[in-house]
Amino acid sequence: MSDEAVFDVMAILGVGLIGGSLGMAARERGLTRRVIGIGRNEARLDRALQLKAIDSYTLDRVGGVAEADLVVVCTPVLDIVPAIAGFAGSLKPGAVVTDVGSTKTEVVAGAEAALPKGPHFVGGHPMAGSEASGVDAARPDLFENAAYIFTPTDNTNLQAMKKMLRFAKAIGARTLVMSPQEHDYAAALISHVPHVLAAASLAIANEAEQERPGDVFSIAAGSFRDLTRVAASSPALWRDICLSSREAVLTALLRLEKELAAMREVISSGDPGAVEDLFKRARELREILNRSKE
Amino acid sequence: MSDEAVFDVMAILGVGLIGGSLGMAARERGLTRRVIGIGRNEARLDRALQLKAIDSYTLDRVGGVAEADLVVVCTPVLDIVPAIAGFAGSLKPGAVVTDVGSTKTEVVAGAEAALPKGPHFVGGHPMAGSEASGVDAARPDLFENAAYIFTPTDNTNLQAMKKMLRFAKAIGARTLVMSPQEHDYAAALISHVPHVLAAASLAIANEAEQERPGDVFSIAAGSFRDLTRVAASSPALWRDICLSSREAVLTALLRLEKELAAMREVISSGDPGAVEDLFKRARELREILNRSKE
Repeated sequence: MSDEAVFDVMAILGVGLIGGSLGMAARERGLTRRVIGIGRNEARLDRALQLKAIDSYTLDRVGGVAEADLVVVCTPVLDIVPAIAGFAGSLKPGAVVTDVGSTKTEVVAGAEAALPKGPHFVGGHPMAGSEASGVDAARPDLFENAAYIFTPTDNTNLQAMKKMLRFAKAIGARTLVMSPQEHDYAAALISHVPHVLAAASLAIANEAEQERPGDVFSIAAGSFRDLTRVAASSPALWRDICLSSREAVLTALLRLEKELAAMREVISSGDPGAVEDLFKRARELREILNRSKE
Repeated sequence: MSDEAVFDVMAILGVGLIGGSLGMAARERGLTRRVIGIGRNEARLDRALQLKAIDSYTLDRVGGVAEADLVVVCTPVLDIVPAIAGFAGSLKPGAVVTDVGSTKTEVVAGAEAALPKGPHFVGGHPMAGSEASGVDAARPDLFENAAYIFTPTDNTNLQAMKKMLRFAKAIGARTLVMSPQEHDYAAALISHVPHVLAAASLAIANEAEQERPGDVFSIAAGSFRDLTRVAASSPALWRDICLSSREAVLTALLRLEKELAAMREVISSGDPGAVEDLFKRARELREILNRSKE
């Protein structure tokens, strides 16, 4: 175990883009002595081995996590809590369990409830998605400058939390700490609601396109294409995100509807100064966004 | 006058990105014998002359349009009707007047009312904007494969309309024909409402950012940056578009709010199949959009 090592043995459940990249980053930087891949599909685990994302693999979840000091759960978001509940009994005392789910409130509450005394859960969300998926898209530098959010609660073990922060910094990420609820509302505002907006915008444009085929989609310029690009993502992934973070998504959607109605009132007023102020403010905020790290 | 010429003398009022590109395209393709630039700023007109966007220029609107067979009005959208009213009396009988405004209902009605018998108005909207502006950004190929929409009414002269279609096709554009109202609703759906959406999304994200500085904008990934990119555009331009096409923008905004509320209901239901269908449909529509010409 090198001086840099944060965890002796690391197990990754679900070795795809994120799990594979975490394995590569940890191995390359000596943050762990050994990485065990855990999955259901032997061919994919074998591919992860070839790509040096893991040192060995097993199809046995319970056995795989038994010797791990860090278990990273990289399953689809709705599977995280059932997975943890399934292997909780075989974890070592002091082992750290983390996840990489896109929503946190339900996941963190469920994971904390599923673990016995001894192992420690720290909710995590490395924001390094990409259009690609699967271990073939994995890269050891995927987390360089990416935001890696941790979502501790009153129950979180401080040592476990510190280790995770050390680990995330060592793979090049910018670490942020917020509550699960704060995370979910922020994620709803900057990611989940934009997906719903893309879907709604496409639906109403299509309604007009159906009435006058060729007259709407064919004149869509940059702004509409930018706005709706995200609709190409996996419907199953977004279904799960909306379901596992329903409260935050609904709150953010309601807030947006209220804001749109207020802006509609401004436009309806016909007051040139007020309408211009609305777009001036938007440009100022977009400049602030440009200056904030991606 | 070459065989290709559609108009003997062409006058362009406002020689910026669009006006300058129209002049370059018409001159390069021999669609006119002579291009007269009309404006207020002699230095800019001189630059247009250097760039071969025009053959000569004048600061005198009334004199400048007097010998033109085609007058293209490229002023800001709210100035189009006043400009036409100002020079209407000096137009040749049979002269064609067109504009390049982003909204059409009010402009077309106002322009038709402002012209005496003799000259003919054809509303036009070449969709070839760009982040850049000014004649230095002008290019003769700006309209290649761009949509160029014409918005005739019952009052439109058929010969004038045919000449404008010939002209637009000759500069490489895809021509579309729709009513001013159809144009404005389509443009509201695919361009104006996305601007308001960007402004509203930035406003509600900023509200959360103010509560927890560093926790919202800094985790904004691709979808939010894509959605809000358009907010960098000119506030004055978007003020004018919203004011000159208020009815269409308000109708489209109300339709969007209704669609968002319906999607919120679906997410609120927690029905996995219904939520997935929402995102599946969005992906299908995005694929259709991808296949439709930009």
